[in-house]
Amino acid sequence: MSNSTENATLTSARLDAADPLAAYRDRFFEPADGSVISYLDGNSLGRPLRATAANLTAFVQGEWGSGLIRSWDEKWMDEPTVVGDLLGATVLGAAPGQTIIGDSTSVLLYKLLRAGLDGQAGRDEIVIDRWNFPTDRFLVEGIAAERGAKIVWIDPDAATGVTPEDVAAVIGERTALVLLSHVAYRSGFLADAPGITKLVKDAGALMMWDLCHSAGSIPTELDAWGVDLAVGCSYKYLNGGPGAPAFAYINSALTGRLQQPIWGWMGAANPFEMGADYEPAANVRRFITGTPPILAMQPLKDMLALLAEVGIEAVRSKSVALTEYTIALVREHLVPLGVELSSPLDPAHRGSHVIIDHPRFAEVTAKLWEAGVIPDFRPPYGLRIGLSPLSTSFAEVEAGILAIRGVLASMS
Amino acid sequence: MSNSTENATLTSARLDAADPLAAYRDRFFEPADGSVISYLDGNSLGRPLRATAANLTAFVQGEWGSGLIRSWDEKWMDEPTVVGDLLGATVLGAAPGQTIIGDSTSVLLYKLLRAGLDGQAGRDEIVIDRWNFPTDRFLVEGIAAERGAKIVWIDPDAATGVTPEDVAAVIGERTALVLLSHVAYRSGFLADAPGITKLVKDAGALMMWDLCHSAGSIPTELDAWGVDLAVGCSYKYLNGGPGAPAFAYINSALTGRLQQPIWGWMGAANPFEMGADYEPAANVRRFITGTPPILAMQPLKDMLALLAEVGIEAVRSKSVALTEYTIALVREHLVPLGVELSSPLDPAHRGSHVIIDHPRFAEVTAKLWEAGVIPDFRPPYGLRIGLSPLSTSFAEVEAGILAIRGVLASMS
Repeated sequence: MSNSTENATLTSARLDAADPLAAYRDRFFEPADGSVISYLDGNSLGRPLRATAANLTAFVQGEWGSGLIRSWDEKWMDEPTVVGDLLGATVLGAAPGQTIIGDSTSVLLYKLLRAGLDGQAGRDEIVIDRWNFPTDRFLVEGIAAERGAKIVWIDPDAATGVTPEDVAAVIGERTALVLLSHVAYRSGFLADAPGITKLVKDAGALMMWDLCHSAGSIPTELDAWGVDLAVGCSYKYLNGGPGAPAFAYINSALTGRLQQPIWGWMGAANPFEMGADYEPAANVRRFITGTPPILAMQPLKDMLALLAEVGIEAVRSKSVALTEYTIALVREHLVPLGVELSSPLDPAHRGSHVIIDHPRFAEVTAKLWEAGVIPDFRPPYGLRIGLSPLSTSFAEVEAGILAIRGVLASMS
Repeated sequence: MSNSTENATLTSARLDAADPLAAYRDRFFEPADGSVISYLDGNSLGRPLRATAANLTAFVQGEWGSGLIRSWDEKWMDEPTVVGDLLGATVLGAAPGQTIIGDSTSVLLYKLLRAGLDGQAGRDEIVIDRWNFPTDRFLVEGIAAERGAKIVWIDPDAATGVTPEDVAAVIGERTALVLLSHVAYRSGFLADAPGITKLVKDAGALMMWDLCHSAGSIPTELDAWGVDLAVGCSYKYLNGGPGAPAFAYINSALTGRLQQPIWGWMGAANPFEMGADYEPAANVRRFITGTPPILAMQPLKDMLALLAEVGIEAVRSKSVALTEYTIALVREHLVPLGVELSSPLDPAHRGSHVIIDHPRFAEVTAKLWEAGVIPDFRPPYGLRIGLSPLSTSFAEVEAGILAIRGVLASMS
């Protein structure tokens, strides 16, 4: 073992010992066989909480198996807004009545993009950036084609992300809405959401944020910033499980004015009236479409309870400490082997993941996975080290970086 | 106890003893405290299988908690079509490559209705009936408004449902597609799906069936009948749990020709290429939109395994026996108290639920629920007795009907 390894080990032990949130890591499930050495992909799929398996059993045998259809009347009909409000209070900075849980992120993007565009009469431009997540770009492409709108592309510095200056340069009287990601999936860049939101609103356009890569790791203040629309997923930093339902935020100032295009019965004013014509609900429920995914939103509730206990500001502090430590380790151990750091160095502009690159990272990632060290790899952007704050220890980060060093060194 | 009660009890015991599927009822969870006397609403929310709670725990700790992100590569990416194909083989009569699991029924209806309408150039009419389920009617209403299509309403006999003659009278050269329910939620009427499908196809229109109220209780032969499109839910007779993901069938002859409007990354030819432009998958995956609901489709897999073991034809035979027995009991015990039977008397035209009506059934249902006898009530159509074949015994049906009689008699 080299001296630098010993030093890093001492440091990670000290950092874990000093971490006020260290004890929460035990709330998450880990395989008993020790087969996962370092999980660095909580930004893609969060670990389950230990409580989740037991709570699902209680749900199956209780609300579902014993309450049966009665649970719809007693509880489930309100679950999309009750859990949405809890997410709003705990994570989003959203007062009650503006957040719903349901559908996939992509379906919610479609519904809100259509609602926003159709609600901005006389404005026909959608602004988005070329490095936004594919599903955001694809949906805008499809909607622009079907509605006869024009896409205005921002071409940001690929290593960073969209700046207020980038936005100011393209918005105007024709801008219907602007769709950006709060944290860029490929660089980890954290956008200036309050600054950009103000610019967009001053221009009379609607501001829509995709929070997929930030929700649960970075606080937002959607109400205070004046955000119009937002969507995000719950299977990353919100630990809702694979394919868990997404969330949508619609600022209450817009609820009555916007109408989404997928007129399912659960968005109707009175679903069980079984009426002849569709009349949308007066409140945020008009953005719901089909029967809400009640079973699928149970694990998210476990994580929201934990986040309410810890507080999102403390989560963000640990996120910053984890990314800072990761960058220090990358510089010490990997940069000498030819690895490049592709994420912002200033934590004020960085989310909770760090991207590093090297020509052989596709091969490296395959070997790492076999060894129980699990980042992810996205061609051609490199290896993503995702640092889910509550489920990741500093020791785990260190073990991961040293494993990457070991595999890279063995190849050279 | 009256003589007629004794006779009925003897009969239900005999019927259960002679039922070749009786033993399967033990595969379903029941509350240990005996608080559910008679569950007659499996047509609305199926009971969980006993295996489901344990299988969910194994899933949370295994594929999710131990496999982590690796499970997407190893298994989950294919799950929407693997489970879809299993549903196709077990229940739908669909060869592989035509069925997907995901979204809600309403979102799938939107995607397939749009795809079908947009793919029928020169035809601008959508045919639907006034007694179809609200979400079907609302979606058609919204789509007709946004696409400039015309709705052609069939006004069927409300106590029965849509007949081939009803359809023949309205289809023609302008008909783009016809959307009907296989089993009518409000009457239990079972449509002549092969006959109607042939008529519609002969007219050059697309035939789309909503299978929500039949899938899992009645065999269909979608391929053999030449059906174009179908959707259905998995939380009724497929026991997938509250808000479980829905399914869609797209006949392989149409796959390459139709394009759905919600262009999410998981419907792209190569989602992880993260490409600049949306290119839909060449196969049935083009009808997928967002990240598939993997956790939420686990309970459905348990039920499909059971249906594969039993066989859907045997399930249908028991369904017919249960509805026949229900009708006999209603005639014996409830008709004398002023109750009306609103479902078809010929089992060839009847699904797996029976509707009965009486002016006081709203009050009656509330009292029944408190007593652990659970049908559902839908104003103004009456009380629905849902007979989920594998989880319902003849004794349970009898206990339910006698409880209804008891409550009604106590009110008069």
